[in-house]
Amino acid sequence: MLIVMHHSALGKDVEKVKKTISSIGFKAVAIPGAERTAIGVIGNQGWVDDTPFRGMKGILEIIHVTKPYKLVSRDFHPADTVVKIGGKTKVGGKSPFLLIAGPCAVEDRKQTFRTARFLKKIGVPVLRGGAYKPRTSPHSFQGLREEGLEILSSVGEEVGILTITEVMSPEHVGLVSEHVDVLQIGARNMQNYDLLKEVGKTRKPVLLKRGLSATVEEWLASAEYILLEGNPEVVLCERGIRTFETATRNTADLSVITLVKAISHLPVIFDPSHATGKRNLVPSMALASVAAGAHGAMIEVHPDPEHALSDGPQSLNFREFERLRKQIGALEGFMKTL
Amino acid sequence: MLIVMHHSALGKDVEKVKKTISSIGFKAVAIPGAERTAIGVIGNQGWVDDTPFRGMKGILEIIHVTKPYKLVSRDFHPADTVVKIGGKTKVGGKSPFLLIAGPCAVEDRKQTFRTARFLKKIGVPVLRGGAYKPRTSPHSFQGLREEGLEILSSVGEEVGILTITEVMSPEHVGLVSEHVDVLQIGARNMQNYDLLKEVGKTRKPVLLKRGLSATVEEWLASAEYILLEGNPEVVLCERGIRTFETATRNTADLSVITLVKAISHLPVIFDPSHATGKRNLVPSMALASVAAGAHGAMIEVHPDPEHALSDGPQSLNFREFERLRKQIGALEGFMKTL
Amino acid sequence: MLIVMHHSALGKDVEKVKKTISSIGFKAVAIPGAERTAIGVIGNQGWVDDTPFRGMKGILEIIHVTKPYKLVSRDFHPADTVVKIGGKTKVGGKSPFLLIAGPCAVEDRKQTFRTARFLKKIGVPVLRGGAYKPRTSPHSFQGLREEGLEILSSVGEEVGILTITEVMSPEHVGLVSEHVDVLQIGARNMQNYDLLKEVGKTRKPVLLKRGLSATVEEWLASAEYILLEGNPEVVLCERGIRTFETATRNTADLSVITLVKAISHLPVIFDPSHATGKRNLVPSMALASVAAGAHGAMIEVHPDPEHALSDGPQSLNFREFERLRKQIGALEGFMKTL
Amino acid sequence: MLIVMHHSALGKDVEKVKKTISSIGFKAVAIPGAERTAIGVIGNQGWVDDTPFRGMKGILEIIHVTKPYKLVSRDFHPADTVVKIGGKTKVGGKSPFLLIAGPCAVEDRKQTFRTARFLKKIGVPVLRGGAYKPRTSPHSFQGLREEGLEILSSVGEEVGILTITEVMSPEHVGLVSEHVDVLQIGARNMQNYDLLKEVGKTRKPVLLKRGLSATVEEWLASAEYILLEGNPEVVLCERGIRTFETATRNTADLSVITLVKAISHLPVIFDPSHATGKRNLVPSMALASVAAGAHGAMIEVHPDPEHALSDGPQSLNFREFERLRKQIGALEGFMKTL
Repeated sequence: MLIVMHHSALGKDVEKVKKTISSIGFKAVAIPGAERTAIGVIGNQGWVDDTPFRGMKGILEIIHVTKPYKLVSRDFHPADTVVKIGGKTKVGGKSPFLLIAGPCAVEDRKQTFRTARFLKKIGVPVLRGGAYKPRTSPHSFQGLREEGLEILSSVGEEVGILTITEVMSPEHVGLVSEHVDVLQIGARNMQNYDLLKEVGKTRKPVLLKRGLSATVEEWLASAEYILLEGNPEVVLCERGIRTFETATRNTADLSVITLVKAISHLPVIFDPSHATGKRNLVPSMALASVAAGAHGAMIEVHPDPEHALSDGPQSLNFREFERLRKQIGALEGFMKTL
Repeated sequence: MLIVMHHSALGKDVEKVKKTISSIGFKAVAIPGAERTAIGVIGNQGWVDDTPFRGMKGILEIIHVTKPYKLVSRDFHPADTVVKIGGKTKVGGKSPFLLIAGPCAVEDRKQTFRTARFLKKIGVPVLRGGAYKPRTSPHSFQGLREEGLEILSSVGEEVGILTITEVMSPEHVGLVSEHVDVLQIGARNMQNYDLLKEVGKTRKPVLLKRGLSATVEEWLASAEYILLEGNPEVVLCERGIRTFETATRNTADLSVITLVKAISHLPVIFDPSHATGKRNLVPSMALASVAAGAHGAMIEVHPDPEHALSDGPQSLNFREFERLRKQIGALEGFMKTL
Repeated sequence: MLIVMHHSALGKDVEKVKKTISSIGFKAVAIPGAERTAIGVIGNQGWVDDTPFRGMKGILEIIHVTKPYKLVSRDFHPADTVVKIGGKTKVGGKSPFLLIAGPCAVEDRKQTFRTARFLKKIGVPVLRGGAYKPRTSPHSFQGLREEGLEILSSVGEEVGILTITEVMSPEHVGLVSEHVDVLQIGARNMQNYDLLKEVGKTRKPVLLKRGLSATVEEWLASAEYILLEGNPEVVLCERGIRTFETATRNTADLSVITLVKAISHLPVIFDPSHATGKRNLVPSMALASVAAGAHGAMIEVHPDPEHALSDGPQSLNFREFERLRKQIGALEGFMKTL
Repeated sequence: MLIVMHHSALGKDVEKVKKTISSIGFKAVAIPGAERTAIGVIGNQGWVDDTPFRGMKGILEIIHVTKPYKLVSRDFHPADTVVKIGGKTKVGGKSPFLLIAGPCAVEDRKQTFRTARFLKKIGVPVLRGGAYKPRTSPHSFQGLREEGLEILSSVGEEVGILTITEVMSPEHVGLVSEHVDVLQIGARNMQNYDLLKEVGKTRKPVLLKRGLSATVEEWLASAEYILLEGNPEVVLCERGIRTFETATRNTADLSVITLVKAISHLPVIFDPSHATGKRNLVPSMALASVAAGAHGAMIEVHPDPEHALSDGPQSLNFREFERLRKQIGALEGFMKTL
């Protein structure tokens, strides 16, 4: 940690800061400059809580050199984490590009079954489908909830496909865990800490979506909550961030793929459907994510997007998805030759 | 709802859209233009779910004229809502400017008691204090939780001051409701819909903070969740939004005060402490919110900000707050004369 | 400047950085930490260009403690700058709240004359009016250009009111300077450095609007361009920033008023018309800016906003403005008593 | 254009709007709804200036169905524009992926010559290099200006490579045009309309970078300025937008590649160096842009990035770039097989 003093800070202000550093067990090193003094904090083994210093007289700025996470950092865990789903399917490291696909929401058994069978046929290992749907308006369809979970698990078992669904509340974690193979934390809940702790207590893989306006640092700190509870099986998922641009639903931030892979050992996948919100942008962005080095992608597919109960405009139909699936596979193979 | 067709949309695309409008019970009115056709949807009594139209061929854009909320809208409830706290203190409409103050976190009984007594003395009706603390890093202080609730309620009772605290999880709503007079929904949980529904089932006033990157429309739709469950006692709180600017912790969006008052009948207050994150900006922004017409303000005060366990840099000490309190009172009186 | 090394940086990486620091005449101080080393740069008299260090092996981050500006900083010029317009009207320091008002664009002589006479009558010292209009679409009205300048200067002289207009191009600076009392740099041109240098060479006061997505640091650095050319008469103007929120035209960032006053000695005023883009939000935000401590405000007024050629929806009519003008005056007086 | 009336708008308000529509030569079609009335404007041949309506009583919202551009739109010019540089090199449509590379700034003849020769050798057709440098701080290196232009043109001629440089001021357009093959409009100048008009009067190809906080609509409207002056040779360049995320210099918005290609006939390329600001993210994002369908990329290369006078941290060295160049070429070939 570095404490930068004001131009006009007095000698006694500096002394007080240094004394406080000592009092919490660290060493202070002053770096006098022509314009102002900075004071380095030495001896910490991790994140220093800056609260004793905040608001002290003469301090201009407190700069954290240490990050608010540790377990998720490659600094302390250099090897790639490979997350196993359902015992055999893998994501991360050198594992094949993971495809997760399916409708935004589980609407009924037939729609789910048709999608699952289609995905199974073309070799997609994981079926997505929302049972609990976070919707902006309470007047919109909220998901089938428990009935949706039942459909998802029975279809998954019958078809022989892994499943993922979003869990929105700590009290649902147990129930949802019984029904699916991966627990999804949605963007709106990325900082729902009680929920993060609860999924951290399970041994299910967790897909952690980046929040609408979450920095990479906050996203990784949220993953840290899960690891700290004992669950290391976390997959990060970039799904677009909120910016001033309204031509797309969100702004796909593909550069975080390589960035996060450099900082963290966790797998990171991409959701082109939510990142763009427009069907015609999904294929090119999915391919771009393969080229960018993502560990997988989650894509919305619906047997009949025009009648989907939610997110129709960003869902591909079966024909469109099958074509994209082949392109992704081919591109993945090609990228290995580069 | 207005459906704008592509320049190149075919006659049969337009027909299909019109047929779908009829099929869900509304009337279609085509508005042919030189460059493209638009189709108006007539006959709806509220928000039209656009899912049947999304992704249909030839559609360029779907424009909602109706909003995703209704109960919170002044259109349907022209009179100001006045929320009563603890039976007598009021906020909203022509009620006096409401002051809520206190530390970011309940740290111990002594700190809480000192603050409560000080606030009581200078006539502040509501004490804030976090028992459950949402923190970016799991390595930071997470609040005293149940112990914090106990301290808050016993101090509140002893001193005779109303209390507010944040509730982060649906399962805590019952417990928290027993201890405090107002339930606070934090910015990170503005779209935690299970939590919104749960507080909607209580009869406690709810302070709903605007999310870090929530539009006014989303914020009001979140309030709609609470009203729809039967609880009309909602107070909105602007606390700054996330933007590119890092010189302040958030960007205080004071213009929403007047904007929200025009759209909604709910009271709206301002939190200058979180909006700015800097102690030296709190007084001027608090005064600005009075001039802008806010119904109240929530301000962080700490007996000893330099040793606060969280948010020290944005907390005022007693002397600073007492000065501000007087200025706010004087300005409030003056504003009535304008 | 502080150079933070990677966790995994080698001793020789650190040595190389230290050597480079020496080679450019500064002193290096290493601050070894448990996790990583940081190296302080000592001895600089101002902004250190970090280019020799950027991209060097083992460097995690370069942190500037010194700012990219100096002349505009209160650190080096503690006393408030008071800018004089037309020899007698003042803005900044303890000067009275400065009001600038008028139409977005100079449309014709009659409109300009009517507005000028009205403003003169109610005691507003400066008339605004765009001659050169920056418009998103080339198909929109672009301003009367030279004819607009002529109208503005002749009306100003006849009525006896000071004038301000935007200058968009370095080559127009001379001409515009001959016609008006204050040169305005618009938000889109805040980083048009050739233009900044050109107005820096004049001795006219310059109103420098904050860019749509400019940080406070960049804004002040742009002002530094003007001062560095020898013109110290700069007035800063906050006019809203671009964020994700579309309910208002821009997001009014009122907290920068106090922030900038603490960092810089330059006067800072507020433009509620562009900041909100909505007529009904202008009065409350203008009053809020007085309470927040702004040195003045620039407000759009039009004799007939419904027929304005640009920015009609955010312009007040004469009656609305006269009312606001009185409120501002009263509030300004009151604020001095606090 | 659609005009949405307030819930509470009176019949006479609606009548007045309809009358105004007629008065400017269009036809009004009312779309009565249960909650509010909307009025369609019919008969326009393009963008309708909404100024006569703005601020009229009873109007809630004005929605533009027509866009602020026409010449750049695929609606009116369905075929891809292929821009020719220096008579033979092409970009856009089915032309090969265009690579532009070189240092951020022209620093001296030797650096420029070395880079040009290297690029020529590996088959890169266009050399970039800044002569006029827009820098945040006036205390930073501002470019060699005219000397830089001389170096660029003489090196280009000697080596036999095309050249591009940024032009920052209308008055420099003539001079810069004499020295280079492509005129670059930088992000900060995307809405410098006098500059846009001036390059529109030349017959040089123009590379138009997207502004830091420009929407796609504004970006295309800026291109419209150039086309409207008679110069159709415009290449769009996405270079990252400003968001809340500070882990990267900007946020690379790759999804606009496909989006812009659908809306406009102009070529669109990508600048991974400015979009990310980090050398280690450049290769993966450059490859991602190929997969996303960009028509080319502009990449910063420097013989010695560690000593570059600007943008060192985002520049590749020769070895890194040569490797990337091969990968891009291979991926480009592969993408044609998909």
